[in-house]
Amino acid sequence: MNGAALEFLHAPRLVAIVGASDNPDKIGGRPIRYMRDFGFTGTVLPVNPARREIQGLPAYRDLAELPGVPDVAVIAVPGQAAVDAVAACASMGVKGCVIMASGFGETPDPEGQRRQREMLANARAADMRLVGPNSQGLANFATGAVLGFSTMFIEQPPQDGPIAVISQSGAMSSVPYGLLRRRGLGVRYVHATGNDADLGVGELTEAVLEDGDIRLVLLYLEDIRDPGPLERAGQLALERQVPIVALVGGRSAEGRRAALSHTGALASERRVVDAFLERCGIRQARYTPDLVAAAELYLQNWQSHGRRLAVVSNSGAVCVLGADAATDNGLELARFTDVTTQALTQALPAFATKANPVDVTAALLTDSSLFGKVLPVLGADEGVDACLIGIPVSGRGYDVERIAADAAAFAFADDKPVVVSTPQPDVAAEFRRSGLVVFDEEASALAALAQLLSHHEQMARARSYQPRPARGSAPTPAVGRPLSEWRALQLLRGAGIATVDAILCTTADEAADAFARLGGGPVAIKGCPAEATHKSELGLVRLNVSTAACAATAARELLAVMADLQLTADGVLVAPMVRSRIEALVGAHVDAVFGPVVLIGAGGRYVEVTDDVQVLLPPFDAEHALQAIDRLGIAPLLAGVRGELPVDVDAWAAAAARLGQLMLANDRIISVDINPLMLGERAEPGAGTGAIAVDAVVVVSE
Amino acid sequence: MNGAALEFLHAPRLVAIVGASDNPDKIGGRPIRYMRDFGFTGTVLPVNPARREIQGLPAYRDLAELPGVPDVAVIAVPGQAAVDAVAACASMGVKGCVIMASGFGETPDPEGQRRQREMLANARAADMRLVGPNSQGLANFATGAVLGFSTMFIEQPPQDGPIAVISQSGAMSSVPYGLLRRRGLGVRYVHATGNDADLGVGELTEAVLEDGDIRLVLLYLEDIRDPGPLERAGQLALERQVPIVALVGGRSAEGRRAALSHTGALASERRVVDAFLERCGIRQARYTPDLVAAAELYLQNWQSHGRRLAVVSNSGAVCVLGADAATDNGLELARFTDVTTQALTQALPAFATKANPVDVTAALLTDSSLFGKVLPVLGADEGVDACLIGIPVSGRGYDVERIAADAAAFAFADDKPVVVSTPQPDVAAEFRRSGLVVFDEEASALAALAQLLSHHEQMARARSYQPRPARGSAPTPAVGRPLSEWRALQLLRGAGIATVDAILCTTADEAADAFARLGGGPVAIKGCPAEATHKSELGLVRLNVSTAACAATAARELLAVMADLQLTADGVLVAPMVRSRIEALVGAHVDAVFGPVVLIGAGGRYVEVTDDVQVLLPPFDAEHALQAIDRLGIAPLLAGVRGELPVDVDAWAAAAARLGQLMLANDRIISVDINPLMLGERAEPGAGTGAIAVDAVVVVSE
Repeated sequence: MNGAALEFLHAPRLVAIVGASDNPDKIGGRPIRYMRDFGFTGTVLPVNPARREIQGLPAYRDLAELPGVPDVAVIAVPGQAAVDAVAACASMGVKGCVIMASGFGETPDPEGQRRQREMLANARAADMRLVGPNSQGLANFATGAVLGFSTMFIEQPPQDGPIAVISQSGAMSSVPYGLLRRRGLGVRYVHATGNDADLGVGELTEAVLEDGDIRLVLLYLEDIRDPGPLERAGQLALERQVPIVALVGGRSAEGRRAALSHTGALASERRVVDAFLERCGIRQARYTPDLVAAAELYLQNWQSHGRRLAVVSNSGAVCVLGADAATDNGLELARFTDVTTQALTQALPAFATKANPVDVTAALLTDSSLFGKVLPVLGADEGVDACLIGIPVSGRGYDVERIAADAAAFAFADDKPVVVSTPQPDVAAEFRRSGLVVFDEEASALAALAQLLSHHEQMARARSYQPRPARGSAPTPAVGRPLSEWRALQLLRGAGIATVDAILCTTADEAADAFARLGGGPVAIKGCPAEATHKSELGLVRLNVSTAACAATAARELLAVMADLQLTADGVLVAPMVRSRIEALVGAHVDAVFGPVVLIGAGGRYVEVTDDVQVLLPPFDAEHALQAIDRLGIAPLLAGVRGELPVDVDAWAAAAARLGQLMLANDRIISVDINPLMLGERAEPGAGTGAIAVDAVVVVSE
Repeated sequence: MNGAALEFLHAPRLVAIVGASDNPDKIGGRPIRYMRDFGFTGTVLPVNPARREIQGLPAYRDLAELPGVPDVAVIAVPGQAAVDAVAACASMGVKGCVIMASGFGETPDPEGQRRQREMLANARAADMRLVGPNSQGLANFATGAVLGFSTMFIEQPPQDGPIAVISQSGAMSSVPYGLLRRRGLGVRYVHATGNDADLGVGELTEAVLEDGDIRLVLLYLEDIRDPGPLERAGQLALERQVPIVALVGGRSAEGRRAALSHTGALASERRVVDAFLERCGIRQARYTPDLVAAAELYLQNWQSHGRRLAVVSNSGAVCVLGADAATDNGLELARFTDVTTQALTQALPAFATKANPVDVTAALLTDSSLFGKVLPVLGADEGVDACLIGIPVSGRGYDVERIAADAAAFAFADDKPVVVSTPQPDVAAEFRRSGLVVFDEEASALAALAQLLSHHEQMARARSYQPRPARGSAPTPAVGRPLSEWRALQLLRGAGIATVDAILCTTADEAADAFARLGGGPVAIKGCPAEATHKSELGLVRLNVSTAACAATAARELLAVMADLQLTADGVLVAPMVRSRIEALVGAHVDAVFGPVVLIGAGGRYVEVTDDVQVLLPPFDAEHALQAIDRLGIAPLLAGVRGELPVDVDAWAAAAARLGQLMLANDRIISVDINPLMLGERAEPGAGTGAIAVDAVVVVSE
């Protein structure tokens, strides 16, 4: 969708308030108050059958009485009255409604659910858009169009700025807004969508990204019912280099249960949501503070040079704690050049530390020029990508203004990110006046810096993905049947995935022949029923069969077992025993919301317990799969330990990428489970012994 | 040591300031200013050869001129002058000196190190105690004895209270002090010890715990050179139910490098430090904010009832995020009784959530009595141990005073912990006025609550340990030699640890006999040199030997190999092949600072890479070892997966506890490495197939 198509929400000329209140602190009174106070230049039309004037404006008995067709109507009446108001708006050509009342689709109440469906049907029929129900409303502080009732707009008065907050929750639009405003940052859009019956967070994100002034978007989500709009918004944000940070509530089972009764959120598999946001370039925040923590850093428009950090402080402890926090956040401490070390030796007292971290010591109390001497030296060192200036104690006795000016001169001499930490509000204010980005302490400063750098890296990765093909609207078929192992292996082989060299035999003699054709090594012989996934449990697997005669006997027995069990069977499979250094798994299934997903993980018997799995949404390259493999818990074992060769991760990654292609190409496949995928070793990249699927369960739709 | 013995530091009558300055913002001027401003009732004696009066006080040319012997002298002069002043103090009978200058033992400079040694020798000879050098000094705001120069005492004026901050770093005494004071909490002791040449953090912690008013102790450490005082302090704190929280700088390699140049900290193995603090009952903070985050909660003196949490909010999102954060922090959401659910249904609007978390919804804006109706219902539910009240948005239109009063009435009706979250400072202030503990948002509130509960649990665990025996002062011998495998296994067996039933043979015939005595199963045959730890690499291991003749041959060959290699040997070991479900490791060594430590972990080939190890300091019980095993990464596999029996963890735990006893009983043992310890299965507790050491390397001192 085109964001400009939502102009009626962001810059309406006529706004009706259905259920308008003369009390500016009631839900139906707040939007009127806000539009008056925050400079709305359009016309507000209060609708209330009981009053002729509301908050100084002429009021109308009902929608029919209005002097014109509103662009948008705020529906501040509850229950069936809201449904009726939406219907009236639809019939008179209103472009959009914002419905504030609760008690609709978010509740288990069938009547509420029905009312929401009725609302939506009326709107759709008239091509009218809905926000809500259960919405705290929308706000655009560029136009003063405040179609919402957040108390936070009184508590922290608005100021227009380059940030948009879009949330399924009212509170989680107000809280980030309030935190940002308290730090003096301007916020333009504060949207709380509620039940997302029609317009959701994704479409509104697309819309605000059409606004070229927006440079940071913060989201709060409890579910993603239609990933398309958010995916397009992510794409647009990457094009415009606008970072999007999202807090997704309901990570835990308890949280999901709560979300179900909050916005009626449906549980998506969490790691699928994570994989989706990762490839969209949308950074996830874990907690509310993380959502806003790096806002000032994002707005600096600093580019990432790298992760080599310099730390300077007047406290050795902050040097130590800064080094610890840098390590925690994946930053490394820059190694200074000899030139830098010599210059620091000149600048600093004898007992100060000239290595990184640089401890100028408490001598700063007697010489406030020390930072001014040290920082240009660090700026000149090409090995320094970013800097933390930690000042845990200063104030009286220190020339804080000078220290701040020196730090600012350094920070703006080039575009390397610089973060400052100080726990003292007065000192922080002085540094902020100099334009610097200030945090309470070193760990939060470095977490925010690392977030900036990681997000830049994530956005670069996101640009490297091919777009996902649009999915048809066909729901995922619920009923499927497993292919026989033989057919499953054939399917995978056809998709370019290496499989064990199995030979299908229908008689004992054929099995003996197959044994010979496979070179006479020990073989595995498995019964191959047309539809069965638990061959071991049925006694249909014989391993290490080492003579042709034994092979014939085993085949005869297995064919007899399957006949006894009345299993339709393709025959038996005779396959060489495949050894591996590591057993991996590759799998895929179709997620009801997000479409095909591929799983890459540690294989073997304990997969459910160890749960060492990464998820990717196809299409993706082998390179993306390698990155996912590198995030696995077993990654440290893959490079080889104590003289072992590395494992052939390239073959593994290629198999995963091909499985992704297969899932996109063949929409009859419901799921694929390759476990184990036997990983060989790799003398050098490209010359490995491969990754071989020795068994596979493939479920296809009926 | 007896804390009262440090009374001269906490309540001196006469205080000399050597290097006193008339400028109250110089290091030598600050203590004078502070003692005047903060109500010190003793006498301050400034010493300065150049002035007769300093900050309005009569000044003295040198120590000899003083009108009496000071209890304590603050040494604010640098370098050799400080050494000389300490010597003069020692000779005149001063009880203690606080040395502020840097450039001593914390630097690589040999002259600085020598000066520190000289200072210490002079002090020891006169039975005088030292704080520092490189110390920001000590402060006791009960007596006004401020023997330090922290700028933070001006920036955040002191108020006496029940908290002590003791730190090796000046900044990390000032920062927690400042953070606590900004939150209105009173702090009595603010001690920064610097180089800990004599008195260290441990002894000062013992001393402040002698003060019955102290109810919370916060520590910052970069190293622990002598664990004894801190261990005694921990014991005292447990007896007095005073929580101690410690931030230990230098968790990372980079952090340790920085700590070395800050306080000259020696690197202790981090997990040994962790194990030490765990058994002392001292809770570790990860970052500076964590050090002070739960201070108000600790001071409430709430007892822990359990981890079943109720969440109430006017925001569904806070319910969701609260549930997520509860899960992250190991809290569970209470399941309400039917009585509770019915009462909530009466109290709340139809669309509000009556399950836990309880979402009273935005209806709070129109009805500020909702919390007052809901909270007593939760208070009456026996299944609720603690409560989060989350109010992300309120203010104008809400009766905040009433909500706060309702919340306080609930919180103080019984002693269940209650935490409140609100991001709005004005709202937070209202709740604080009601006596409630308030956080910015739900995640930090629950992290602090969980810290309180976890720390109570840790203190209970700490009480369950037998005390560690005092160690002799003998340093750990650096030179050791490995015992032969035979002697190593004998030693372990003697300590009650099950070992493989190996038979030592010196001839091929004996090996054939041993084969027969072991029942004729397949055996392992290993060369057993008197001192060698890499038998596999030397080709001295033969596995799965399955006939007596082969056993004889193998023995003959191995004896020949050892003779060729000119290895003195006990002979060869013939042992049954032992199968296991899981290979574990148990090991022990003597830490130079902390004494014997025991390691428990996942065994096998990849131990260095997987690094799945827990550390315990003996003595400990099998129960403690079981807790450690439960913290391992492989713990989920131990209970048995897909119908497997559980692994015999009891036998493993018992072996670990016995190894701890062995290390305490036999101080000739430098290290023990049992890998693998073969774990069998366990049909039920006490009826397992055990944990069997099949190989062991034991290194003993020469």
